[in-house]
Amino acid sequence: MNINIVPLQFDLNSTEPLYAQLFHYLKDLIIKGDLAFGDKLPAIRSFAKALEVNNITVINAYKQLEHTGYVTSKQGSGYYVSKRLTEEASVFTPKPLYQQELINFSSASPDPGIFPTETFKEYIVEVMDRDKGYAFGYQEVNGFMKLREVLAQFLKQTYDIETKAELIQMVSGAQQGLDIIAKSLLYSGDSVITENPTYNGAVDVFKSRGCRIVPVSLTPQGLDLIEFEKKVKICKPKLVYIMPNFQNPTTICYNKATLLALLKLAHTYDFYLLEEDSMWELTYGTRGSLSLKSLDAEDRVIYLKSFSKLLMPGLRIGFIIMPEALVEAFTRTKQTTDISSSGLMQRALELYFKNNKWEEHIHYMKRIYKDRYECMLSKLLELENDEVELYKPQGGVCFWLRLPKGMSAQHLYEKCHKKGLLIFPSPIFFPHLDPSKDRYIRLSFAACGITDIQKGTDILTECIRTYH
Amino acid sequence: MNINIVPLQFDLNSTEPLYAQLFHYLKDLIIKGDLAFGDKLPAIRSFAKALEVNNITVINAYKQLEHTGYVTSKQGSGYYVSKRLTEEASVFTPKPLYQQELINFSSASPDPGIFPTETFKEYIVEVMDRDKGYAFGYQEVNGFMKLREVLAQFLKQTYDIETKAELIQMVSGAQQGLDIIAKSLLYSGDSVITENPTYNGAVDVFKSRGCRIVPVSLTPQGLDLIEFEKKVKICKPKLVYIMPNFQNPTTICYNKATLLALLKLAHTYDFYLLEEDSMWELTYGTRGSLSLKSLDAEDRVIYLKSFSKLLMPGLRIGFIIMPEALVEAFTRTKQTTDISSSGLMQRALELYFKNNKWEEHIHYMKRIYKDRYECMLSKLLELENDEVELYKPQGGVCFWLRLPKGMSAQHLYEKCHKKGLLIFPSPIFFPHLDPSKDRYIRLSFAACGITDIQKGTDILTECIRTYH
Repeated sequence: MNINIVPLQFDLNSTEPLYAQLFHYLKDLIIKGDLAFGDKLPAIRSFAKALEVNNITVINAYKQLEHTGYVTSKQGSGYYVSKRLTEEASVFTPKPLYQQELINFSSASPDPGIFPTETFKEYIVEVMDRDKGYAFGYQEVNGFMKLREVLAQFLKQTYDIETKAELIQMVSGAQQGLDIIAKSLLYSGDSVITENPTYNGAVDVFKSRGCRIVPVSLTPQGLDLIEFEKKVKICKPKLVYIMPNFQNPTTICYNKATLLALLKLAHTYDFYLLEEDSMWELTYGTRGSLSLKSLDAEDRVIYLKSFSKLLMPGLRIGFIIMPEALVEAFTRTKQTTDISSSGLMQRALELYFKNNKWEEHIHYMKRIYKDRYECMLSKLLELENDEVELYKPQGGVCFWLRLPKGMSAQHLYEKCHKKGLLIFPSPIFFPHLDPSKDRYIRLSFAACGITDIQKGTDILTECIRTYH
Repeated sequence: MNINIVPLQFDLNSTEPLYAQLFHYLKDLIIKGDLAFGDKLPAIRSFAKALEVNNITVINAYKQLEHTGYVTSKQGSGYYVSKRLTEEASVFTPKPLYQQELINFSSASPDPGIFPTETFKEYIVEVMDRDKGYAFGYQEVNGFMKLREVLAQFLKQTYDIETKAELIQMVSGAQQGLDIIAKSLLYSGDSVITENPTYNGAVDVFKSRGCRIVPVSLTPQGLDLIEFEKKVKICKPKLVYIMPNFQNPTTICYNKATLLALLKLAHTYDFYLLEEDSMWELTYGTRGSLSLKSLDAEDRVIYLKSFSKLLMPGLRIGFIIMPEALVEAFTRTKQTTDISSSGLMQRALELYFKNNKWEEHIHYMKRIYKDRYECMLSKLLELENDEVELYKPQGGVCFWLRLPKGMSAQHLYEKCHKKGLLIFPSPIFFPHLDPSKDRYIRLSFAACGITDIQKGTDILTECIRTYH
């Protein structure tokens, strides 16, 4: 394989080292398709000679390509372009360090192998060079203004959400967002309505404020509106917490009628709706996602978005769209909580959005996840013969399964664990202890490549079939 | 001025760009004293020619030296080595962006011009290269283990505090530390004793938990023990919050007798002591600082340390030493608060400590701050003739002044503001509203160079003398 190196002009005065320049040049060739799956990269020595650089420069560039998944090395043979988007699992999916031997269907966070680390590294360095000490000073309490401006624009274009920079509060991840919302709004004795089942980390936050948790059942269209209104009348909630797209853990999506009904009830009974969104973008079918906030004419929706699931959890960045009436309370709480979120990360994220990297990355994630989704779905469908019930979400990174009657999710978890598979049993997702709810499991493909999905679902099937 | 460039060998295959290599080479010459104050750097063109690099490389290196304060440029003349440690103010103290024209005695945070940004940039890049995606994944809830190990060792060596990595909880700055401690320990109706005056950001956190705040007066040796015991008996506090070294805002330091008495009372009346420390290291006189935690034989002290004041606030990193009995509660609360602090920053900080940069930096900060301290002290002593009372702290970054009878701190603040000086009036530091407390001001030199300290104290003197 000969690479046309004529257009490659090293810039000796660049702040970018030579190996990085070479890495970017080759990466672009792979993305454009000039280097195709299976192509062998030139041998190190002759390539270095042709480029008039040291061998180490070429080695470093190749290693960088390998780490970011563009090529794979075969011992004694050289480097080959990866079939990145479909066979990425075997190439560049390192498992979480703390459990190298387990297949992890439990974590809904992407594995570090598919993080856009190279791009962020560039922007982080760019920010440090540009802003010097200011990148490490206190940030405005509400967040870096330029980022908030970019996000407001982006929300309009992408989500059809009308807002403005002044209403955006940056937070250090969605978990902190929940904490700040709770501390701003909720006091001892207040009631909060949640979905049943729901995200346990949110329940913990509400409980920590001394609140009463009132769970309401889910239908395939969203909250059960009849049960909901009955409970609203009794408990007079201050806040209703929902995840309208790919709900965690059930993966259901609300329909528009349910969302509109909730907004109407919020007006009638005077409560705030908290919409948490971490998966809006991840649709694989024809269904478009719908945000509650985009329908919110009366400013009753607090919108909370995390970048942890779609980008990287380590950024510790998310944001809230605040109803105008709550801006002052939220700002004061953020100040008391941790003064401000990381200025460096906010500034890097601003560059990321400004340079349209977000959409590129989402496109990339969707291609990866869609393959995994289809692989896991086809394997799980085989379990329907075993009386396992399955909802087909057409998006997100999880499946929610109801086990056959008489089977305990907790016990199945232990069986799977012994065989090297981590699954998420259901009890923790139900705010009120209820033995009849120990019958569901959540399976995620976020941290697993195709091979592991196949192996893991085989283990699961075996454990279910040999359960008794 | 001729620079010996023989030892300077550019490494073309390094990940470090040429200008950065040149920057480090020159920086070392300045630190070693081979380039002395006032020395002119070689002209750009001839130096670039001698080094066989592009002009831009030299320009970038010079600019980097300028940004980090090692040299200063004189228009039309060239670059000169700065008298960095004594006249740094005029050279590299940019004011906070939002108030370019005001002299700021109000902020106790260092100005971004003296942050160790270059060193951190190196370590951040090193971590990103080394750990790739893992630098951006979720971190352990308690924090990056290697950092906690380094800190445990460092606490033993430097502070005489015996602890272990397992008892260290990393937090996103001291403010978050306060929030986590409060959420782990305090519930609606609990009492918390604070110093009077105290840090208002802590009071806000305790109040947010529905606690009753019971302030106790300060003597020059620490809490007034007679008033303290009386109030302990009545209010039965769960927590007592103190800052034994360079207390904020009064700058007083506790003596050993008071610390020991507090520990004894904690045993008798069964409460926890929360020691917040952000200034321990910053002593300019002969007095050694003493940490309450180092005397804590019964594990009753929660120790909270921030790196914001001595390093950079934007790291958003601090830590708690947890009493063993509280580890579980603190861990659960941290998880609910924001899951984990930035893995990237924790990893960079680990390199910073491992490479002994902390002590080097403290040494540097002490030299800068000592000059500022002495400058401000000598100016403020002149005010003693105007019936202003002043405590001489021999450390820290603040002074606490009692104004003459009949003078309002709030009103003086407004007068100074109009003349271009920000000071911190006292009322906000007193948990209970008390008009008689509107008579103190806090002045900090953390964000001001020598010139501004002189100008600012002149404005203050004028405003005090023309008050009536």
